[in-house]
Amino acid sequence: MRIAILLYDRFTALDAIGPYEVLSRLPGAELEFVAAERGEVRTDNGMLTLIAERSIAEVPRADVLLVPGGPGEVAARAGGPVLDWVRSLHETTTWTTSVCTGSLILAAAGVLEGRRATSHWLALEQLAALGAEPVSERVVFDGKIVTAAGVSAGIDMALQLAASVAGERVAQAIQLGVEYDPQPPFDAGSPSKAPAEIVQLLRGHSRFEAQLT
Amino acid sequence: MRIAILLYDRFTALDAIGPYEVLSRLPGAELEFVAAERGEVRTDNGMLTLIAERSIAEVPRADVLLVPGGPGEVAARAGGPVLDWVRSLHETTTWTTSVCTGSLILAAAGVLEGRRATSHWLALEQLAALGAEPVSERVVFDGKIVTAAGVSAGIDMALQLAASVAGERVAQAIQLGVEYDPQPPFDAGSPSKAPAEIVQLLRGHSRFEAQLT
Repeated sequence: MRIAILLYDRFTALDAIGPYEVLSRLPGAELEFVAAERGEVRTDNGMLTLIAERSIAEVPRADVLLVPGGPGEVAARAGGPVLDWVRSLHETTTWTTSVCTGSLILAAAGVLEGRRATSHWLALEQLAALGAEPVSERVVFDGKIVTAAGVSAGIDMALQLAASVAGERVAQAIQLGVEYDPQPPFDAGSPSKAPAEIVQLLRGHSRFEAQLT
Repeated sequence: MRIAILLYDRFTALDAIGPYEVLSRLPGAELEFVAAERGEVRTDNGMLTLIAERSIAEVPRADVLLVPGGPGEVAARAGGPVLDWVRSLHETTTWTTSVCTGSLILAAAGVLEGRRATSHWLALEQLAALGAEPVSERVVFDGKIVTAAGVSAGIDMALQLAASVAGERVAQAIQLGVEYDPQPPFDAGSPSKAPAEIVQLLRGHSRFEAQLT
């Protein structure tokens, strides 16, 4: 099973690496990081560089496409070869997936027209403006399209996808392998649970970066 | 605050990237990926390459040291400059931390002698053999040493560390920023919860890779 994870300048690392860590453990997984051109791609905060080992031209097809989010999504969905590639790949994928604001890229590629989808909680209105039907859920399946909420939600999405692809037993073995028994120290991971002042803080701040300087 | 994340050949990506995604959002964080030499470092499954932008020689001190795990830990803790660097950095860190089998590297560096610590559930016996006092908990604080259980546990650890460093409000804002409201599809993330046959499967398998081929 070929899995293509799109990288682009200023993507958010965990959006891509959470699902990578789960999906790469699927039996027979051939997982590749793909960008407009081969080579170095820098994350949103400039503190990390990953290598895209394939260019979009080299990957005309994949069974699973995963599009991460991050502040760079604005440029990525402005148009151009990457957006064309997403649109074209989607035609033959078995699963087309996104994490966080990666769904805005899918929407801009025309893939989410009228489809139920999710995104980072701060981006749901924008998702609606781009033609999708936004849903405040952590993981949303609509046919072959699977979208996850913000950043860390890609791990939950990938485990659900693993179960769909390879069965519950395999997904559970992967979950145990990565010891995913989450114990967050606070119950503050969604706007419905976090203290109101924290929600306001993030709403007022430059989106998705959450730098509390 | 200077945060150094050690990279080495065949580390497990999420061990490093989970905490990176949280700690990089701390106010004033200067986070660097460090390896024996600058340049490309490949993950455990060979499907991903990250760039270490600093060599250990260039980073003689850090406020926070984070050591990820992965199959490459065996070579990393066999001795040599990386192990010396871990030992030396630890002398002046504010926090010395690890995820998964990264704690075996800390132990081999002599940092965990008689200290309470955790690791991947499959590595707790080995941790004891290296002189630590193994604890079956997801995140263990012992003085300035903080260790996390397998792979995904680094996210929980980093949020606890963020609260210790910058206060609960900042940690909660980071948690909301990365929308960490985990909803794993199965309750199979620890050996005490997963079906016995899955636990046996992983025990019998080449450790930490969980490739179900």
